Amino acid sequence: MNGFEDLEQGVCAAAGFRAAAVEAGIKRSGGLDLVLAVSDRPATVAGTFTTHRAAAAPVRVTRSRVASGSARGVVVNSGCANAVTGARGFQDAEDMAAAAAAQAGIEVAEMLVCSTGKIGSHLPMDKVAKGIAVAASRLANTPEADEEVARAILTTDTRPKRACVAHGRGWSLGGMAKGAGMIAPDMATMLAFITTDAVVAAEHLQAGLGPAVRASFNAITVDGEPSTNDTVLVFANGASGVAPSEAELSSALENVCGRLAEAIVADGEGATKFVRVAVRGAWTPVEARRAARSIAESPLVKCALYGADANWGRIAAALGKVDITLDLDVASIWMGGALLFDRGRPTGDRAVEEAHTGLLAHEVEISCDLGVGDASAVMLTTDLSPGYVEVNAQYEP
Amino acid sequence: MNGFEDLEQGVCAAAGFRAAAVEAGIKRSGGLDLVLAVSDRPATVAGTFTTHRAAAAPVRVTRSRVASGSARGVVVNSGCANAVTGARGFQDAEDMAAAAAAQAGIEVAEMLVCSTGKIGSHLPMDKVAKGIAVAASRLANTPEADEEVARAILTTDTRPKRACVAHGRGWSLGGMAKGAGMIAPDMATMLAFITTDAVVAAEHLQAGLGPAVRASFNAITVDGEPSTNDTVLVFANGASGVAPSEAELSSALENVCGRLAEAIVADGEGATKFVRVAVRGAWTPVEARRAARSIAESPLVKCALYGADANWGRIAAALGKVDITLDLDVASIWMGGALLFDRGRPTGDRAVEEAHTGLLAHEVEISCDLGVGDASAVMLTTDLSPGYVEVNAQYEP
Repeated sequence: MNGFEDLEQGVCAAAGFRAAAVEAGIKRSGGLDLVLAVSDRPATVAGTFTTHRAAAAPVRVTRSRVASGSARGVVVNSGCANAVTGARGFQDAEDMAAAAAAQAGIEVAEMLVCSTGKIGSHLPMDKVAKGIAVAASRLANTPEADEEVARAILTTDTRPKRACVAHGRGWSLGGMAKGAGMIAPDMATMLAFITTDAVVAAEHLQAGLGPAVRASFNAITVDGEPSTNDTVLVFANGASGVAPSEAELSSALENVCGRLAEAIVADGEGATKFVRVAVRGAWTPVEARRAARSIAESPLVKCALYGADANWGRIAAALGKVDITLDLDVASIWMGGALLFDRGRPTGDRAVEEAHTGLLAHEVEISCDLGVGDASAVMLTTDLSPGYVEVNAQYEP
Repeated sequence: MNGFEDLEQGVCAAAGFRAAAVEAGIKRSGGLDLVLAVSDRPATVAGTFTTHRAAAAPVRVTRSRVASGSARGVVVNSGCANAVTGARGFQDAEDMAAAAAAQAGIEVAEMLVCSTGKIGSHLPMDKVAKGIAVAASRLANTPEADEEVARAILTTDTRPKRACVAHGRGWSLGGMAKGAGMIAPDMATMLAFITTDAVVAAEHLQAGLGPAVRASFNAITVDGEPSTNDTVLVFANGASGVAPSEAELSSALENVCGRLAEAIVADGEGATKFVRVAVRGAWTPVEARRAARSIAESPLVKCALYGADANWGRIAAALGKVDITLDLDVASIWMGGALLFDRGRPTGDRAVEEAHTGLLAHEVEISCDLGVGDASAVMLTTDLSPGYVEVNAQYEP
């Protein structure tokens, strides 16, 4: 991108943000499980949230605070989603934010709260409170803090996910994400936290975040499962003194959200493939998205990808089962770089062999030209492997 | 059922129907793969068909013929779905039916045609024609024919599926089905064929079939994948001379469709569990069905069932992600016979242990009381196992 440099840093890349991670004892397995991140100065904020009807308690608390357009900090725990926890869960989320605000010395209304982990359990509030106090005493803007907080928000993820851009004019925008199913609701909620030291009004921040999220986190799927806790937050504290143009801000958000989203797919539960599904020639953008999602979420397509099986009939079947303008006589399908179905006609065994070879790679593409319009859409996904089942079948009493 | 006896017979149980199965050489693996079944006399017919936009060629041919209300025979092949095969596929389906009608000595318009197997391949029409000729010469109303035709329509199924009721007044209704995914479009389309020697007008046959299919084949799901070839056909030839009441016919259809649908779930691809999902207390029947289907199709719920994991949070998450009237504070959830979530409150670790023990059984139940109305729905499904992935990942060039 013009004027930008890509970096592997997270929420501490921007000036004026400090963060800390601690072992609060919320995760049964041990390990870092609580994060506090705070801006040294007032900041604007924007967010996008799950559309799930059983949105978790912290989502409800945070969503209403983000609406004001300003916030200075967030407290995050992994190991417990605080979802489906009723009135007590809501109170716990408010208490957790209040404790974090008090320890960080900011207004309660300026502290946001997020949780991820198992659904249906209450937070161990004594451990949470002690963890917050320790974290507040360790807040720092260092590479170590940046890396530790990215690890502390993980659940079934196998690695931390950070992405950052630094602009030549002296501001940067960076963030971290967690998630290993697009959403596996009880162990792998998707969370992303982004900070920038650019000067950005709250309405511009929200206006830039929406399209960036649509093109990134909303264009990935591992298992088609929406979550109770999905949250993306971006804070802008203006510490650099630089006000980027709308286009610059959009570029930065799209870059960072896009890289974090790709990192989530690459770390998908049990995934052995990184899959790009590209649909073009659709009648409308909505239909293009619907077609791409149907292919990306089809268990049969995903099983075929696991086996490098150039089974284009499953792509045709995935297209036919959703409400789109479809005429297979003008549609074409490619897998692994090979044209397998050319405007209504299979292209034969040699093409299937060629596609099979292409599908043996780690990064593979499925593309379709529906031949009825000009709209297109891209979804990123994974294959479906026995490993996904194993990750999600484990009985933990 | 009053006046009925349950039998394990299929399409030859009713008087006046003859059938035969042959090895036509359509399946690469060999084995029986072509069935001809014919009524000795005129018969009424009813059918239900896939709603898939890429309905296969034989579905389009058969659907238009069933609309007339009368038909005397059906020719079925396994090993090739004749789906996504364009104008040539449509001509092949018509030619296959015409050849069968000529060999069986009936009108072309009275011969139906069904195919199941891999999507996107053309039928080997020379083999089909030879197979039809041999089958026509072997048509018989015998237990052997009854069993062989039930085997010949299978693809990834591991066993034939037959169900029949004989009524004390001297008529019977029996049928066979195939399907091992609710629908795995390219290898496990769901087909069912039912015959009766009762005297039934075509409009009554169709009126009875609709509700029976809704309560049986439309209330099962293995992987949420609709198919290009789904077809249920019922023929009534009146050979018994007995005209059942509407209620008797409905009972017979519900019994036979219900047992065949259960047999499909029990033979689900990779299934290790037979799962009944029961939702009650929903606001409307549509919402009850939507809730039950969301639970039954959730990969995370199905993985938990594979692991006998009493993970009720995933049930709550499945309820929250669809458009239903939902207030978790009045909802309750049971797994494996144990109440895990009681009107907004988790019931604790002992209940989770009890549910885990219950879930170790082969036949398990998930039930929910949404607490907002009087509507209910039941769906039958399977767990999601590594075996499902293996069945569907195999590369066959």
